[in-house]
Amino acid sequence: MDTAPKVHIPTAYSDQMGRVTQRTPAVRIDVSEPTTPNVTRRPDTVAVEEPMEIRVAGTALTVTMRTPGDDFDLTLGFLHAEGLIHTSSDVRQLTHCLDEDESGSPTYNVVDVSLADGVALPTDRDSRAFLTTSACGVCGKTSIDALHASGRYAVREDDTVVDPAILASLPELLRGRQKVFDRTGGIHAAGLFTAAGSLLVVREDVGRHNAVDKVVGWAIREGRLPLTGHVLVVTSRASFELTQKAYLAGIPVLAAVSAPSSLAIQLAQEVGLTLVGFVRAPRLTVYSESRRTGIPT
Amino acid sequence: MDTAPKVHIPTAYSDQMGRVTQRTPAVRIDVSEPTTPNVTRRPDTVAVEEPMEIRVAGTALTVTMRTPGDDFDLTLGFLHAEGLIHTSSDVRQLTHCLDEDESGSPTYNVVDVSLADGVALPTDRDSRAFLTTSACGVCGKTSIDALHASGRYAVREDDTVVDPAILASLPELLRGRQKVFDRTGGIHAAGLFTAAGSLLVVREDVGRHNAVDKVVGWAIREGRLPLTGHVLVVTSRASFELTQKAYLAGIPVLAAVSAPSSLAIQLAQEVGLTLVGFVRAPRLTVYSESRRTGIPT
Repeated sequence: MDTAPKVHIPTAYSDQMGRVTQRTPAVRIDVSEPTTPNVTRRPDTVAVEEPMEIRVAGTALTVTMRTPGDDFDLTLGFLHAEGLIHTSSDVRQLTHCLDEDESGSPTYNVVDVSLADGVALPTDRDSRAFLTTSACGVCGKTSIDALHASGRYAVREDDTVVDPAILASLPELLRGRQKVFDRTGGIHAAGLFTAAGSLLVVREDVGRHNAVDKVVGWAIREGRLPLTGHVLVVTSRASFELTQKAYLAGIPVLAAVSAPSSLAIQLAQEVGLTLVGFVRAPRLTVYSESRRTGIPT
Repeated sequence: MDTAPKVHIPTAYSDQMGRVTQRTPAVRIDVSEPTTPNVTRRPDTVAVEEPMEIRVAGTALTVTMRTPGDDFDLTLGFLHAEGLIHTSSDVRQLTHCLDEDESGSPTYNVVDVSLADGVALPTDRDSRAFLTTSACGVCGKTSIDALHASGRYAVREDDTVVDPAILASLPELLRGRQKVFDRTGGIHAAGLFTAAGSLLVVREDVGRHNAVDKVVGWAIREGRLPLTGHVLVVTSRASFELTQKAYLAGIPVLAAVSAPSSLAIQLAQEVGLTLVGFVRAPRLTVYSESRRTGIPT
């Protein structure tokens, strides 16, 4: 049993524990009657996703996309898994840098770690796997702005419309082509469809981001970028990272079988991408640019 | 439309497309009759997870855990999402380094990228987020060996036994404490239990690895490491990374609601950790060290 003293947690920390969910406008579509879909507009509650930067003695070590709350525990657990600390006595202090967002509110998205005397960061050659970072900043807005600047394709101008009844049917079509899922019951998939519902390519991977990378890589190899007029279907939740990959490939519609995160929705709204979640026939929920499902935004 | 020529794919690539699933011994337990669990031993098919290293001109850029197959598409998609390439003409050649595993078979786990003339790697300060790597090697065995060496706790020697009927009940207990899931329908959770089924701590996050880091960070802060005699329950699949985090915290039993990956199982077997998958009452499947569920291994 580790007998080290407990790490002091400043009270400011607990003040923002509630910032783990967020209300967002949503359009629910039920295509039980395919020719006359039932449309309901009401706010939906989604899990917050925000970047958190871990700094050691002021130097950025990593940025992870996480749900706010328990940030110091997340930091300790991360440092432990990376082999940097073994007990709480290896850490002298944890503080939230009080950086501010554009409205002047603290973001609590940077945690600074002071290691105890004698506990050193490994050099690059000793370390296992670290993210280095610069532009990737301290709030979701920063991340979106950086990404927006690097996007090459005007996704917002894509006028594709997908019949919501077709959209609702795509996960089942994808499922029918998931060979590895059939055998293992546990692997992610990403599928690229035309707006008319034709499946172009399916990729499966234990990592959902890998499945999407494989689909986009296929499109790059085939000389098909930008993927104007296409729909990307993922069997997972829709994170910021997946939405980013869809946007950068010029895909106008991302449809996820499970829930979207707050930052995925914010990014989709910002770049004009249609983000659809909980696509489970006969229902689906549209979080941005519903015009591409034939519903005025 | 990108009119760049298609990237040449060497034929060796397709030769190993089949290595995406793997057979593994498994013990299925049905606790419909809690006092007399029904036990079946038969092999299970799981999705393969293996590390893949991407090198640009011989220099390691990143290591990602992925399911083998479509490695060149994965590489192209990754480089594209990172802003390193925009079309296939930015890449001159993709090759698998023919590194070998301990049996002398090629691993196909390193992809070397030659960029076209004039396409440069950004310097560290321009780049968004890159993994640097050294020890993390070219096959699952390398990763496990590196990790095994860094583990501080003798998980194998932990004699904890958990009643399978209790084990099967834990996801439901965890679910009852998932406040964010209740409101959003989409967030991961990790929960730490005693062997008797008492819940100590629950953490929710959009990232399953973050949820586990938060639990371990809590335990570090509380001075509870190693977590001998405890059970970690995750609402997701069991990846190599989650199994690694459990092992490094000295947790003897990892129970996942969904499927385990091949490398998670190999790691669990190597370090003597009990890995349980598809924990969905009244059933569960044990992939390693079933002795801790009262079934001889």
